[in-house]
Amino acid sequence: MSVAMNDLGIVKRNIDRANKAAVEKLSRFSVATIHEAMGRVGLMQPYMRPIYAGAHMCGTAVTVLLQPGDNWMLHVAAEQVQPGDVVVAACTVDNTDGFFGDLLATSFRARRAKGLVIDGGVRDVTDLTEMQFPVFSRAISARGTVKATLGSVNVPVVCAGATVNPGDVVVADMDGVVVVPARIAQQAADAAEAREANEADKREKLAQGVLGLDMYKMRDTLAKAGLRYID
Amino acid sequence: MSVAMNDLGIVKRNIDRANKAAVEKLSRFSVATIHEAMGRVGLMQPYMRPIYAGAHMCGTAVTVLLQPGDNWMLHVAAEQVQPGDVVVAACTVDNTDGFFGDLLATSFRARRAKGLVIDGGVRDVTDLTEMQFPVFSRAISARGTVKATLGSVNVPVVCAGATVNPGDVVVADMDGVVVVPARIAQQAADAAEAREANEADKREKLAQGVLGLDMYKMRDTLAKAGLRYID
Amino acid sequence: MSVAMNDLGIVKRNIDRANKAAVEKLSRFSVATIHEAMGRVGLMQPYMRPIYAGAHMCGTAVTVLLQPGDNWMLHVAAEQVQPGDVVVAACTVDNTDGFFGDLLATSFRARRAKGLVIDGGVRDVTDLTEMQFPVFSRAISARGTVKATLGSVNVPVVCAGATVNPGDVVVADMDGVVVVPARIAQQAADAAEAREANEADKREKLAQGVLGLDMYKMRDTLAKAGLRYID
Amino acid sequence: MSVAMNDLGIVKRNIDRANKAAVEKLSRFSVATIHEAMGRVGLMQPYMRPIYAGAHMCGTAVTVLLQPGDNWMLHVAAEQVQPGDVVVAACTVDNTDGFFGDLLATSFRARRAKGLVIDGGVRDVTDLTEMQFPVFSRAISARGTVKATLGSVNVPVVCAGATVNPGDVVVADMDGVVVVPARIAQQAADAAEAREANEADKREKLAQGVLGLDMYKMRDTLAKAGLRYID
Amino acid sequence: MSVAMNDLGIVKRNIDRANKAAVEKLSRFSVATIHEAMGRVGLMQPYMRPIYAGAHMCGTAVTVLLQPGDNWMLHVAAEQVQPGDVVVAACTVDNTDGFFGDLLATSFRARRAKGLVIDGGVRDVTDLTEMQFPVFSRAISARGTVKATLGSVNVPVVCAGATVNPGDVVVADMDGVVVVPARIAQQAADAAEAREANEADKREKLAQGVLGLDMYKMRDTLAKAGLRYID
Amino acid sequence: MSVAMNDLGIVKRNIDRANKAAVEKLSRFSVATIHEAMGRVGLMQPYMRPIYAGAHMCGTAVTVLLQPGDNWMLHVAAEQVQPGDVVVAACTVDNTDGFFGDLLATSFRARRAKGLVIDGGVRDVTDLTEMQFPVFSRAISARGTVKATLGSVNVPVVCAGATVNPGDVVVADMDGVVVVPARIAQQAADAAEAREANEADKREKLAQGVLGLDMYKMRDTLAKAGLRYID
Repeated sequence: MSVAMNDLGIVKRNIDRANKAAVEKLSRFSVATIHEAMGRVGLMQPYMRPIYAGAHMCGTAVTVLLQPGDNWMLHVAAEQVQPGDVVVAACTVDNTDGFFGDLLATSFRARRAKGLVIDGGVRDVTDLTEMQFPVFSRAISARGTVKATLGSVNVPVVCAGATVNPGDVVVADMDGVVVVPARIAQQAADAAEAREANEADKREKLAQGVLGLDMYKMRDTLAKAGLRYID
Repeated sequence: MSVAMNDLGIVKRNIDRANKAAVEKLSRFSVATIHEAMGRVGLMQPYMRPIYAGAHMCGTAVTVLLQPGDNWMLHVAAEQVQPGDVVVAACTVDNTDGFFGDLLATSFRARRAKGLVIDGGVRDVTDLTEMQFPVFSRAISARGTVKATLGSVNVPVVCAGATVNPGDVVVADMDGVVVVPARIAQQAADAAEAREANEADKREKLAQGVLGLDMYKMRDTLAKAGLRYID
Repeated sequence: MSVAMNDLGIVKRNIDRANKAAVEKLSRFSVATIHEAMGRVGLMQPYMRPIYAGAHMCGTAVTVLLQPGDNWMLHVAAEQVQPGDVVVAACTVDNTDGFFGDLLATSFRARRAKGLVIDGGVRDVTDLTEMQFPVFSRAISARGTVKATLGSVNVPVVCAGATVNPGDVVVADMDGVVVVPARIAQQAADAAEAREANEADKREKLAQGVLGLDMYKMRDTLAKAGLRYID
Repeated sequence: MSVAMNDLGIVKRNIDRANKAAVEKLSRFSVATIHEAMGRVGLMQPYMRPIYAGAHMCGTAVTVLLQPGDNWMLHVAAEQVQPGDVVVAACTVDNTDGFFGDLLATSFRARRAKGLVIDGGVRDVTDLTEMQFPVFSRAISARGTVKATLGSVNVPVVCAGATVNPGDVVVADMDGVVVVPARIAQQAADAAEAREANEADKREKLAQGVLGLDMYKMRDTLAKAGLRYID
Repeated sequence: MSVAMNDLGIVKRNIDRANKAAVEKLSRFSVATIHEAMGRVGLMQPYMRPIYAGAHMCGTAVTVLLQPGDNWMLHVAAEQVQPGDVVVAACTVDNTDGFFGDLLATSFRARRAKGLVIDGGVRDVTDLTEMQFPVFSRAISARGTVKATLGSVNVPVVCAGATVNPGDVVVADMDGVVVVPARIAQQAADAAEAREANEADKREKLAQGVLGLDMYKMRDTLAKAGLRYID
Repeated sequence: MSVAMNDLGIVKRNIDRANKAAVEKLSRFSVATIHEAMGRVGLMQPYMRPIYAGAHMCGTAVTVLLQPGDNWMLHVAAEQVQPGDVVVAACTVDNTDGFFGDLLATSFRARRAKGLVIDGGVRDVTDLTEMQFPVFSRAISARGTVKATLGSVNVPVVCAGATVNPGDVVVADMDGVVVVPARIAQQAADAAEAREANEADKREKLAQGVLGLDMYKMRDTLAKAGLRYID
């Protein structure tokens, strides 16, 4: 009876991926910029870290719900991957086992996946680094996993504190991982673009020694808030 | 533009609460039993703890999305509480500030709320204990909060790793907090009842010295799995 | 040479304790109220917890700087304790050893100390609970300590993230521990009193069902901030 | 081949339990005293906490090696329990699932076990508290477990950082859990007794206001170490 | 009233920076050597890590007290930076938000700041690494901050467990961050130099196979302490 | 008396090191492969991390039991090191102090040690990286240690959750640290070799787009377990 009550044991084959042009546009912006542009929602917890310096990616989510210590569903997920997808794996329990290694990475890459986000552990990180296959994870661990219990593929998951629906855009860089719901991908991309428009100008001014206090005209607000300068 | 992109700044007034009879029935079972009966999903992280020994509750969720260090939305939520509700508060960032104290508890109780689940801190725990107002939280902290930034009420939230939709059933006892989606409340209650049906009988047998090995007929399976007894 | 460079190996005998009347007045208010009244500074980290339910105290600080795994300075501190003092012990390194047990508690009580705040571990908690000797600590541990390395008594210390100077007022209850600098003890006590003045009235109104939204006149501000009610 | 290489899948039936008289004598002393008497070894990590205030026990270890999320071996262990035993359960991976609840406690009690030490989670803590069945654990969690993978019973285990061999004495109270190797149980009991002999006398003196500085004759050593008193 | 009671809302313009020659001399030694030379005080907690391999710096502190999720005071601090300063930012609450990114780094560098130590999060770490702008932080997070609440600049702060006064010397390398009070900067630099004087000689001997046991003449002390060699 | 009861104060000079050929063979395999080949036991906790990217090693264990904040025994251990050994240091208490730096590394290398595994902190990591001396540790910290209290060398230790006996094989790479008991070193090496035999073939197939689902023939088992594909 319990299977009827939850989303375990399901693979959804047809999912609505975010608009390709929007994904492409989002790939030009940093996680920080996109998160800001969306009104500061959708960021995964900062314990999610890249396994090598410089890792970054942007793609549409194929979601996976794993059982602890069991990576069976990652093999099931491989078949659902389309070019440009990012696999996003959550786990029913906090778990740091090494669910993913160089063989699965080889398979994912053959399917033209962009990378992996996993709220669990990974292994073979030396190989993954050589392959430059981007992985963002909560842990690195040599501990392997079994293939014994069903989870699901392409159901909504909570990964590192963020809700991810299949087809959402997932962007990751050295600052973290952000999830952009598919329905607002274009809007978020436009907002990110708008934010970046005058960044170069600001950077130039600050580099010349103009203070943020003046550039952002903060002095009055600060004084009104009660800031006092003493000697 | 960002408000359009996320769920901040919204209060949903009409929500579909789980069937009253199902909620009532679920209130008779433990969190462990219900979690088991649902196929082991919906449990919040074990860092969520009761603020006093013996705290327990069962009710329908009024959800709140808080900003860190800001309890404005708890006041907004109070108005949406109906008798039998449990307030479930998530926060956009990990935060242990004391969002909730005896004044808000007085207000919630006047609205006949059953209790509070909050992925943040609470204070006035001595008063809350005297009131026997059940609270399950991630922290206790005297640090107060401001009322300055909008969150939302009755949007879907992720609280301590579990997705909670407004109207879902939330059950909490000394073992933790479990969320039962409104649409399967009756089914979960029935499954929980079925699980408990023969527990008393099992307990009796075990108390008399019958081993689980025999009662559950495990010896064959263990032998097949390769268990070896040595001296 | 290094001893000249730091505050290790020093016992300051004469310290300026906060005004007795101010301490007495502060003892009537909760940690949450005092922290709020001071403008939200001086709170120790929430990992500092009482060793038994109901523990609370208020007194003037005799500070101790401990070396990890070494409780020698607590014996030195005992002599500096005057009636009404609270011993506040910091450690040069994060350490959870059991620096303090029932014998030291007996000695401190004989000196009429009010209790102990220690950023480390304590043991004999069953005895300490029977004695109702209030202790707020980061850990409970049976691991004992040696008496081999000098620390200091009555130097400024950083305890659980808060700066404590000898003579400051330390207030602790189930919500945490707050430090009130001696020079502003009276001012803080007055501010706390002012905060509490109309709490009873507010509690009464909320108990009768008046919403905080109305009592605090929040509806306009919320609307201006953009809060939208939907059905 | 791997089974031959490790201790998985084994139940040792005959173990050498520590001498009964020594166990009985050790049961009269606190964990802190025994740990001190043994030269400060054998203490489990302080994250091991009792599930209710006042829990304490002393007995001989029946050890269990669990697989994460799997409590099969606890049922196997039940049969190996003899009156006066304490079950000590380690896990091959860090895991907080609720491996143990009121049914197993009923079975263990029927076998006259003294209690449980588990480097994992437990559930049904309200029932366990009513039964006054002492459990020391790393977590409380409603999450149940399966019965699918072999571990072992009565092999040496590492539990919360301490090595436990079957038959060792395990003593637990509000301050933590200590392991006394069976071969030195009598020696440890005698050493604990010696430590306690003059505690009452010391406590009396300290209660009368004698300082530890004088009672332990510390003043000279402190001066030699360079302690300076300033005003 | 509360502003009078704490140090919030203040910018101190004139601070006493440590002697330039002493700072220069300190910059030649490692954090480990300086910490040792000062008698093992002043080290920040080891959770403070560099954002890129090889980051190191030495300068005089401009201190900042931040509010959680608010980087307003970093802009205020920029104006107080003089060539050779290090900005040291503490926060009133534990917070991992990304307070600092490439724009502020550009501004700080224009003021000829040496780098940043922050008990919070930073973002744009790819850019900061390209700029080789040294930052030592507790976290990396894309989450941005607001500019809404006053903190202070150049007041004493507690950063990662260490007290920092404006003008103190802050030295950071791959091993951590140490604070040298301005008044003892010269003394600490001299002591560090003395410690290093014969390191090269020792390294040479050890490289040739001389044992520390002999070089440091430890054998007698070890024997007296009771060390026993067995076969 | 306590020394008789524990293993403190002992140096065992003659230990049985694992067979050289087996160690050599094990050095060709990854930690993940060896851990898997042994049946998934012997892995240290994942908090043990290399101090530089690419660190790896394989050798026979010289074990050390350290006291917190005290590195005396590392000097004692140096004398026991033979070419090809790895020093494995555990500590009687959780401790992150910097027990080990470039001088000890110079000494260990002169003895032809392969590297260090330490459940504590290390310092001088810039120098250690330049030396390419592999260290796996729980922390990096500039905090130095004293030489005052006896521990032991070549006694069994528990390091990061794994039992290590002197002479065992210790293998470490970017994925973690695994311990192979000396008596099964050859068997483990053979099993690891067997595991790797057809990895290249599998990698090739996966790279060509063959799915794991087909290569491992999982489809039937998944269907039997109840996996449902939906659209």
